Amino acid sequence: MKNYTYDAEKLKDWIKKDGIKKFAVQVPAGLMHHAKAIREEFSAFGDCYIYAEPSFGACDFPQKQQIQYVDGVVNLGHARIPNITSERVLFLELYADISPNTLSFECSPEVLGKHTALFTTVQYLPLLPSIKEKLKDAGINAHIGRPGKRTMYEGQVLGCDVSSPCALAGYVDSYLFVGDGDFHPHGVCMQTSKPVFRYRINERKIERVQFDRERFLKKRYGIAYTIQKVTDVGVVVCVKPGQLRMHTATALCDTLRQHGKKAQIIYANNISPAILDYSGFDLIVSTACPRIALEDYINYKLPMLTPQEALLGLGEKKEYEIDQIL
Amino acid sequence: MKNYTYDAEKLKDWIKKDGIKKFAVQVPAGLMHHAKAIREEFSAFGDCYIYAEPSFGACDFPQKQQIQYVDGVVNLGHARIPNITSERVLFLELYADISPNTLSFECSPEVLGKHTALFTTVQYLPLLPSIKEKLKDAGINAHIGRPGKRTMYEGQVLGCDVSSPCALAGYVDSYLFVGDGDFHPHGVCMQTSKPVFRYRINERKIERVQFDRERFLKKRYGIAYTIQKVTDVGVVVCVKPGQLRMHTATALCDTLRQHGKKAQIIYANNISPAILDYSGFDLIVSTACPRIALEDYINYKLPMLTPQEALLGLGEKKEYEIDQIL
Repeated sequence: MKNYTYDAEKLKDWIKKDGIKKFAVQVPAGLMHHAKAIREEFSAFGDCYIYAEPSFGACDFPQKQQIQYVDGVVNLGHARIPNITSERVLFLELYADISPNTLSFECSPEVLGKHTALFTTVQYLPLLPSIKEKLKDAGINAHIGRPGKRTMYEGQVLGCDVSSPCALAGYVDSYLFVGDGDFHPHGVCMQTSKPVFRYRINERKIERVQFDRERFLKKRYGIAYTIQKVTDVGVVVCVKPGQLRMHTATALCDTLRQHGKKAQIIYANNISPAILDYSGFDLIVSTACPRIALEDYINYKLPMLTPQEALLGLGEKKEYEIDQIL
Repeated sequence: MKNYTYDAEKLKDWIKKDGIKKFAVQVPAGLMHHAKAIREEFSAFGDCYIYAEPSFGACDFPQKQQIQYVDGVVNLGHARIPNITSERVLFLELYADISPNTLSFECSPEVLGKHTALFTTVQYLPLLPSIKEKLKDAGINAHIGRPGKRTMYEGQVLGCDVSSPCALAGYVDSYLFVGDGDFHPHGVCMQTSKPVFRYRINERKIERVQFDRERFLKKRYGIAYTIQKVTDVGVVVCVKPGQLRMHTATALCDTLRQHGKKAQIIYANNISPAILDYSGFDLIVSTACPRIALEDYINYKLPMLTPQEALLGLGEKKEYEIDQIL
């Protein structure tokens, strides 16, 4: 598979140990264009089916009953989330095929500060030691935080768990994300007022991640308090194994009822405006992936809150708290 | 629920007999705007959750593992499909709230012929005897066929099973569908060159259903024969309990390989161009709902065939045969 490497031994061991003959490979949405190469390579290891539902992470894999005709599933590209139980699922990380020798960037302690927290997604994890070395040469101490409750490796972040860098808040002047896109660094920006930088490997440069935290919080406070004016609240529970927070949802329903609201649970797999906007609720609280309420809300007609925002709006919490699944 | 009635006793009996305390209601996509009324009414019978995934029929319900926190599921609006096993699912039909006395239409044997096959979807089934009477008064013998393998009631059709009216082919001059839309009558048009009519109750009129069968068959033959030119074939298997035809798919893979093709199975829940068009196959054969290949193919870049069309293209079948799940 071009541009990526993976641990073929891990795949072979799993096939041997679990007696896998037929397996389905779950290809992440962003790698669908590699689907042909993936299925051609993986067919060498057994009877390989493609599981053609987009996977949004290691939280999102099919359950046994759904794919009863195969012996197991390969969730490709994601690291296992330690606190999620999965049966006959192999999480096979994909690593960017980049030699540490080719890494290049300019930086200085004047910009990044003397101490920075280095973090990334699973595909660039093997590069962190080399990047740390390079930063050291430039006079910057790069710290790599311990894994969070949802992550396997030091410095690794997910959309729902950025605790690895954020736990270093007391020790660092800045945060440095390795990779592209806003999704993961914004998770850190939401939690800190210190500067967050991004090292885009292909661009060979480190740049500041743009995020207006004050505006973000103002908006979220505003949305949180809308709950005071409504009566009919839908509480979303996502059926994806790693997003399912039924206890959070039922406890919240109880609290909502104590506050005189009507509350009802909405079970869903893929949450979409097409479904929720016609549900007839006044407001939605989502216990699914926290980033849906925090970033996709703009696509919904109904106000959508995280569980913490609902409690803030109801006066059950005093301070704003970012939702993470921990 | 405005405009619809249902058998509340059937719901109560199920709740009592199966000891259901919490249940999820699966609202069909077309009735999402009734969601509020549905959940308010159904909350009188127990702790009612909304299952917010669009349901495309009685073939499409969540499996136990997916909704482990409720005791059962109400699949609303659809009649049970007899040859599908379901666990803790109640299929609760919805009937259009229309009095037979208000039915009105004009018709004559010159247009419909002396014998017509009457058919409809579950919501209008209770009206068939009255419509039959009215047709008789106009000099037309309306015949109502026996249920097919996938249908519960006389005269009932589904997207995947129109055998109830089609079994009467030898006895009738025409077919008469009660209801709106093209989806169900087109299923009959594909199987017959006799005229198919539609009685739109609200419009109070019977009209001919437009369908160019010759053009349809010409197009499908053309698509079927494209299989001769390709090497890499993806065979779609849908995980929805009532669309899952794994044996059809694996047998087809064997046949494809005997013809020198590469063949691989694609497991999917909701089939979409976003997934299949990037899968890197040359051609797709879909064993899911037959209507996807027959009518949605236009949305896909890749040619999409039914299993029967694939066999026709390979020379394993001599005549064109419409795919039905029977």
